Amino acid sequence: MSRFFSERFAELTPYTPGEQPRERRYVKLNTNESPFPPSPRAIAAAAKAAESLQLYCDPSAKLLSEKVAGRYGISPDEVILTNGSDEVLNFAFMAYCDMAHPAAFPDITYGFYKVFAALHNIPYEQIPLCDDLSICVEDYIGINKTIFIANPNAPTGKILPPSEIERILVSNPDNVVVVDEAYIDFGGESCVPLVHKYENLLVTQTFSKSRSMAGARLGFGIGCKKLIADLHTIRFSTNPYNVNSMTMAAGLGVMEDEAYTQKNCQTVCENRHFLMQELQKMGFDMTDSVANFVFAKHERIEGGVLYAKLKEKGILVRHFDQPRIKDYNRITVGAREEIDALLCATQEILEEMK
Amino acid sequence: MSRFFSERFAELTPYTPGEQPRERRYVKLNTNESPFPPSPRAIAAAAKAAESLQLYCDPSAKLLSEKVAGRYGISPDEVILTNGSDEVLNFAFMAYCDMAHPAAFPDITYGFYKVFAALHNIPYEQIPLCDDLSICVEDYIGINKTIFIANPNAPTGKILPPSEIERILVSNPDNVVVVDEAYIDFGGESCVPLVHKYENLLVTQTFSKSRSMAGARLGFGIGCKKLIADLHTIRFSTNPYNVNSMTMAAGLGVMEDEAYTQKNCQTVCENRHFLMQELQKMGFDMTDSVANFVFAKHERIEGGVLYAKLKEKGILVRHFDQPRIKDYNRITVGAREEIDALLCATQEILEEMK
Repeated sequence: MSRFFSERFAELTPYTPGEQPRERRYVKLNTNESPFPPSPRAIAAAAKAAESLQLYCDPSAKLLSEKVAGRYGISPDEVILTNGSDEVLNFAFMAYCDMAHPAAFPDITYGFYKVFAALHNIPYEQIPLCDDLSICVEDYIGINKTIFIANPNAPTGKILPPSEIERILVSNPDNVVVVDEAYIDFGGESCVPLVHKYENLLVTQTFSKSRSMAGARLGFGIGCKKLIADLHTIRFSTNPYNVNSMTMAAGLGVMEDEAYTQKNCQTVCENRHFLMQELQKMGFDMTDSVANFVFAKHERIEGGVLYAKLKEKGILVRHFDQPRIKDYNRITVGAREEIDALLCATQEILEEMK
Repeated sequence: MSRFFSERFAELTPYTPGEQPRERRYVKLNTNESPFPPSPRAIAAAAKAAESLQLYCDPSAKLLSEKVAGRYGISPDEVILTNGSDEVLNFAFMAYCDMAHPAAFPDITYGFYKVFAALHNIPYEQIPLCDDLSICVEDYIGINKTIFIANPNAPTGKILPPSEIERILVSNPDNVVVVDEAYIDFGGESCVPLVHKYENLLVTQTFSKSRSMAGARLGFGIGCKKLIADLHTIRFSTNPYNVNSMTMAAGLGVMEDEAYTQKNCQTVCENRHFLMQELQKMGFDMTDSVANFVFAKHERIEGGVLYAKLKEKGILVRHFDQPRIKDYNRITVGAREEIDALLCATQEILEEMK
C-alpha cells in the first residue's frame, strides 16, 4: 500500500478468485466453468467483431439488449448489460445501499457481497443460514435493508422458489431485493417473471456458466425501467463502453443458438445427478444443489485435507476456510471424464485414509 | 430515477460519449478512433481466444502485464491493465481522492474527470487554461491536491513536456499526479520514464487510439509498485476479471507487431500535418495539437453551426457546448479520403456562408 492510498480503504480485503494455476495442467473443478466450448456461433461472431476493433463498441448495447429482452419476455429498457455480473452487482451496491440503506445477505454466500459493501463503505448484516445451510426466509421479512440473495445460493447450490422470494419482496417494499441468478439455468426456477410485479426486484444473471462465456465477461441485470435507468446512470458515470465489441458479438451469437445452451444445461444436470449418486455411495453428505456444482463433505476426511490431496493428484476443487463450511468442498460438475477422474482420485484418497 | 436510488447520486450527471449513430453511414471523425484496422496479429489472437471462452480469463493478466512492462522498460508489478483507460482513471479517483484529498484538473479537459469526482463524492477544482488554451503549470505548483492532467490535453491536443510535469510532481510531494497519456503516441514525449523517479506519478495509457483497439477496451496504468498495488486492491474489490480473454489476446498480438503501430502513428502525424495545413488555408485557427485530432475554429462560422452543417453532409465531428470552446470543433485525423471528404464539405459550407 502506498502512503497516498485513501484511508477509507485501509481495511479493505479484496475478493479472492478461485485459483487459476499456470504451472501445471489440472482437472479444473474449482471455478464452476462450463466443460463445453462456447457455441460455434459465438466464436464466429467474436472473430468477425475482432476485425473492426478500431471502432468503439456501442455504449447503448442496442442489439444485444434487444436480444436478451426478447429471450426473457421483457423490453430492452428493462435490461442492463455489464462486464460480467460482478459489475452489475457492484452497480447495485452503489445505487441502492448507503449509510441509511444497509445491505443484508446470508453469512454463507457469494464472497464478493461483503467486499462490495466494504469498498463502498456500506454497513452490512450477514444473516446466518439455517442449520441445513438453507436460507431462512423469516430472517429477511421486513428487515428494511437492501437484500442480496444468490439463488441458487453459492456455494451450497440450494434454491428458494419464487414464492418465497416474493415474501421477501412484499415485506420490504422500500428496499431493493437483488436476486443473483448466476446459477439459475441448471434446473432452478427464475424470478425474472416477477420483475413486472415488483418494482423493488433486480435479477442478475451471467453468460459465464450456462453459456460457456466466463472468459468473455458478460452479465446482465433485469428489473423495472426505473431501476435499470438508475444502473445506467452509474454505468455512464463509470465506464460507458463497459462491454467490448467481441463480447457483445459473442453474446448475440450464443443467444441465437439457444438449443446449444439448453442441451449443455441438460447434460450438466445429468452429470450432476451421476456425480451426487457416486459421491453418496462413497459416504459423502451433500446439499441439494441445483447449480453446476455440488457441495460435499465426508465424515472421515476434513474438507481442507481432501482439497489438498485432490490437488496433489492434479484435481482442483474449491475449499472455503469459513468455520461453518470448512468440512465441505465445492466441486464443479465437469465433463464426464473429469467427474470420473475426480471420483477415482477421491476413492483412492478415502482408501489411503482407512 | 427510481425512488430507491441512493440520494448521493441525485445530482449525478453521467458522461456523454460521442455519438455512435446507427441510422446513417457517416464519415466518422468524432471519437478519435484509428482509421486503420487492428493488427492482423491482434485479430488472429482474439479469434483464437474466442474458442476457449468457457474458461475464465487470467485475473493476474500475467502474460500481457509482462509484455507491456517489457515494451516500456518497467517491471510487471509496475503496470495494471484495465477495461479501457476509463477504468484505471476511475480506480485512481477512488484510491487517491477523498474529502481530505480533493481533485484538481483543467477546466477544459477530458469530460470524464468531473464525472468520476461527482460519482465518488470527491470535491474538485477546475483550474482554467491560459488564454491560448494551454495548461498554466504555475497554477498547479504546490496546490496539495490530487492532480489529473491529460497530456496531450483533450480536446486541445496541446502537450506539456516532461520537465514541466516534473515541476508539478516535485511541488506536490504528498499527492498523486495522474498523467493521462491517451494520445501520447502521435508525437508527444511520454512521462513513463519518470515513474522510477517519482513515487507520486501515475501514467495512464490506452490501446484505443494508436493500437486501433477502441472496441476491445484495454487501458493501463504505470507507476511505482506501491501505487500499482493500491490500484490492484481496488480492482480485486471491484472486478478481478476486468479484462476479458479476447482483449487480453488481442493486446498481446498488437504488442508483437510494434512496427504496425509505429507505421500507423507516423501516417496519422503526416495526415494531421496535411489536415492542419489545408484548414489553415481556409482560414481556420487551430491549437498546436500533437494528438490524433485537431481543434479548429473559424471566425466566419460558429462551432455549433459548422458541426450541424457537416453532419447534414454526412460528416461527424465533435462539438462541445462549454462557453470557452464553443467556437471550436474537434476533428479526428482520419484516413486521407476521410480528410478529403471533410475538407471538401467544409469548403462548400464556407462558400455557402459568403
